[in-house]
Amino acid sequence: MRMPHVRRGIDMLIERSKKVLNDSGADMLFITAPDLRFYLTGFASSDGLVVADKNGTTFYTDARYLEAAKNALSGSGINVAEVPKGGYMSLSDGAGRLAAAFDRITADEYVALTSRAKQVVNCTNEFNAAMSIKDEGELAAIKKACEIADKAYTDMLGAFKEGMTENDAAAELEYRMRKFGASGTSFETIMAFGEGSSVPHHETGERRLKFGDVILMDFGCKWGGYCSDCTRTFLFGDDKKHEQFKSVYAKVLEAHMSAKRNITSGMTGREADETARSVLRGYGLDKFFTHSLGHGIGINIHEFPYLAPRRDNVLRDGMVFSDEPGVYFEGDFGIRIEDSVTLSEGRVVSLTNTDKQLLIL
Amino acid sequence: MRMPHVRRGIDMLIERSKKVLNDSGADMLFITAPDLRFYLTGFASSDGLVVADKNGTTFYTDARYLEAAKNALSGSGINVAEVPKGGYMSLSDGAGRLAAAFDRITADEYVALTSRAKQVVNCTNEFNAAMSIKDEGELAAIKKACEIADKAYTDMLGAFKEGMTENDAAAELEYRMRKFGASGTSFETIMAFGEGSSVPHHETGERRLKFGDVILMDFGCKWGGYCSDCTRTFLFGDDKKHEQFKSVYAKVLEAHMSAKRNITSGMTGREADETARSVLRGYGLDKFFTHSLGHGIGINIHEFPYLAPRRDNVLRDGMVFSDEPGVYFEGDFGIRIEDSVTLSEGRVVSLTNTDKQLLIL
Repeated sequence: MRMPHVRRGIDMLIERSKKVLNDSGADMLFITAPDLRFYLTGFASSDGLVVADKNGTTFYTDARYLEAAKNALSGSGINVAEVPKGGYMSLSDGAGRLAAAFDRITADEYVALTSRAKQVVNCTNEFNAAMSIKDEGELAAIKKACEIADKAYTDMLGAFKEGMTENDAAAELEYRMRKFGASGTSFETIMAFGEGSSVPHHETGERRLKFGDVILMDFGCKWGGYCSDCTRTFLFGDDKKHEQFKSVYAKVLEAHMSAKRNITSGMTGREADETARSVLRGYGLDKFFTHSLGHGIGINIHEFPYLAPRRDNVLRDGMVFSDEPGVYFEGDFGIRIEDSVTLSEGRVVSLTNTDKQLLIL
Repeated sequence: MRMPHVRRGIDMLIERSKKVLNDSGADMLFITAPDLRFYLTGFASSDGLVVADKNGTTFYTDARYLEAAKNALSGSGINVAEVPKGGYMSLSDGAGRLAAAFDRITADEYVALTSRAKQVVNCTNEFNAAMSIKDEGELAAIKKACEIADKAYTDMLGAFKEGMTENDAAAELEYRMRKFGASGTSFETIMAFGEGSSVPHHETGERRLKFGDVILMDFGCKWGGYCSDCTRTFLFGDDKKHEQFKSVYAKVLEAHMSAKRNITSGMTGREADETARSVLRGYGLDKFFTHSLGHGIGINIHEFPYLAPRRDNVLRDGMVFSDEPGVYFEGDFGIRIEDSVTLSEGRVVSLTNTDKQLLIL
């Protein structure tokens, strides 16, 4: 049951390994990491190796995946073969200049490769550059993951009930994403009620929902192997003690929208981060904005590029990333407003699109 | 909202880093991998570093996790500190004999550590040995994850309906695990209808359930940071074309039960694998048993030890692993019967416990 998007453009897949091999200036590309293998082949597996050299691209895997891989990659020009008796590493024996992703191979693998190939070079930057620019099929998958998350969020708003636990609410939300077509979550759902919202990476638990609580939900799903990421913060009833919340909410939303309006292709990650951080600084809230503005989204929920004060990566058309300013008042409440967005013709286009106006359920 | 199990025995947590440091014979333990950090601290985070040396154990993390980590680790004897300005790697400057897990650090990290510490040694084996023997709290978490999965499976049997897709059924099952207390799935649910069951790692999709279909479901959840793993295969109505299925089912179940009866503490992974493989060989079915019998289960869904033809690791009391013989007839059907089990007083005790007799819905 391959997803239709994998079949569309199947003949273009091989260009990905050709490009990374070429950009890295190596004789052989040697890729073991699951996410990079999926990028190069469109085939998901827990075990395998992609080798690309002047003779072509081959996906090696074990018996469990062999038939499925052959079916999935027929017509792609990518060969499929079973792992040799000597193991994956034996395929690097006698290689000249071999390229591996140093942030994705283990020290064990590095030590083994350096003893077998003449030279081992790092192709992480080449993968980052290639994977950060999404093609039509990838963008369609991310859009679909975003649409599913949007639909689940909207449907979920009617399901919040006083007394339900954070875990209950996360279960209800995840069920909706699954039913609306997601293959799973793109990360562990953060469902924070009340003071839990003040912890940026709150652990969803047994806290029960009370009238007047802040609800912060940070959630995403996967479709066709690609992720969505979205956060909304709102009130479960207005207990009239929320003047500070309402005032801060407007400022975080202003920062979020400033990023959307002002980020352009060609900016660095630092400049992009500053479009939102400067707004919060103007209100003296920047010291409560304790994380960066955003991160790339694709096969992985966190990937290149990064929108952060110390990042020089340049944003380009076709990149997908999060816009997620947040402020946190420890033990009291927190607010984060996040959309997944892409850059198209130089400007930000939002991929998650549910309402962000102050919401009181 | 920390889980209660984390608080029980919080003062024993520090023994884990002391033991691995001591067993590795190093001056400093330097651990960046999320699963190993969780093992050493009981605190889950996407970012952090655990350093243990003669002065004690410290968990370094960034601002997002700092408060939550301090709360979670109070009373543990483990210090909590913010990542230094120079980054995590700077904490290895001038170290003598530094131990890192070579199967869990990247080549980037390895290269950085070797340039900063006098010597860098591998402590993967020490972690495998320590983590494979579960303590009372860990076993309780795995049991809970297994109970939740059992309950969800039993409840799910009434929810299969003709015409539903594999994705629908996976959504229903995952919803039940979540509602019954799981924090999420321990891996992507495999829900295979009909001929999809013949692919050991079938990708759950849009295939619709028909009368007479084989249903193979391989599923697990997480509770308190620990995994469960279970597979059941059964029939959705008997279309009277299932004589071969029924005959093979009995043989796979015999292999599964042979493993449970015959695996003992002190056996190697190869000997354990053989307890099931020999049964299938007796029926001429071993060539269709295309994977190994089992794998360790804990914080990770696949971990040490392995029950496989080429593994010499010795099984010990307190280990938790899967017993999952399977046979696959390509394009036709497959059968896999899997329980999560532990070794106690030398013998196998099953942790997933739903019925395995041939089931026709």
